[in-house]
Amino acid sequence: MADTTNVLAPEHPILPVLAQRRSPRAYAAQPVPTEALHQIFAAAASAASCFGEQPWRYIVGSRASSAKAYDAILSSMGEFNQAWANQAPVLAVSIAKLNFSHDDNPNRHALHDVGQATATLAIQATELGLQIHQMAGFSVDKIRESFRLPAGYEPVAVFTLGYPGDPASLPDGLREKETAPRTRKPLAEFLFEGGWPGLEEERYDQAPV
Amino acid sequence: MADTTNVLAPEHPILPVLAQRRSPRAYAAQPVPTEALHQIFAAAASAASCFGEQPWRYIVGSRASSAKAYDAILSSMGEFNQAWANQAPVLAVSIAKLNFSHDDNPNRHALHDVGQATATLAIQATELGLQIHQMAGFSVDKIRESFRLPAGYEPVAVFTLGYPGDPASLPDGLREKETAPRTRKPLAEFLFEGGWPGLEEERYDQAPV
Repeated sequence: MADTTNVLAPEHPILPVLAQRRSPRAYAAQPVPTEALHQIFAAAASAASCFGEQPWRYIVGSRASSAKAYDAILSSMGEFNQAWANQAPVLAVSIAKLNFSHDDNPNRHALHDVGQATATLAIQATELGLQIHQMAGFSVDKIRESFRLPAGYEPVAVFTLGYPGDPASLPDGLREKETAPRTRKPLAEFLFEGGWPGLEEERYDQAPV
Repeated sequence: MADTTNVLAPEHPILPVLAQRRSPRAYAAQPVPTEALHQIFAAAASAASCFGEQPWRYIVGSRASSAKAYDAILSSMGEFNQAWANQAPVLAVSIAKLNFSHDDNPNRHALHDVGQATATLAIQATELGLQIHQMAGFSVDKIRESFRLPAGYEPVAVFTLGYPGDPASLPDGLREKETAPRTRKPLAEFLFEGGWPGLEEERYDQAPV
């Protein structure tokens, strides 16, 4: 794999597998071996979660072996996403269990922890030479109906999974995006040491609560 | 670092840095070098986010260099958490920007994407020999007031950051937890290929929506 460590965060080098992870849209037809799929979701399970609830669930549809689930996930997407996602050999839905199992109270961190699990599986996928691309552009209701989700479970995101394909195969407009450099906010825009920015005076005035 | 790859997911080996990540409570007094702190948060920035919004923000309080912020975060925690978290050299709060920057509409994935970023920084921390432990047991309102967060920003979790300490230093009850093996649900409890479990009949009956 190309060493892109320094592309994303040149001044603060991060783990190559983190720097290499991106959300591509070009997929090869090559299927995902079952063992790789299992490693990826075992990685999801390694994530932290509030009360150890592990509120994440995933439905997977493989074009090769579970085509109806694949089609149901694909058809939940907006047209724009279907146009490229239909090349991926595997589609998946992340789902949050909204209430805690131990007391049935709402879990404020349910979606947060699904995010932790999916971020982690994306990293394992990258390590295996695979890639995922998550989408918010899908019908939550269609997923709920297609898979008859019980109450208390909420579809969070759909995503593609597979091996990298040829960017030239993508529709116009997406081809350029595929190979564009990744950009991120500089640290100073989201990391605030000592207090919220713009409050340099006030923040030292107040005693801690 | 000990190779614990196979402890968590013996049948499906995952990246060692994922298997090694855990949420310990024993911290050494050793401060976190600024460069390590910056690498950790640069890793957070590498996470995926809906519309590339990067809705995560972090306030960091270091005992050595921003003690008032440190104390404000510490005192937002419940007593149980304060009892061990006060050993960590750095405390932090993750914060979600709730609305999209491009159109000010609610971002359904704001907390989800904060989860993605924090999961990613936890992995980078592990790589650097550091550790974090996230907590839901804190007062959202105290954080909001202490740091005068503007409307539209929500405190999500607080966490410790530092180098591993001696488990023997922990209060009774936590000492054993610190070294207990990590356990996770088996794949079959959260990964569903082809449809929601228990609906094996129904799920092939229905046409995709």
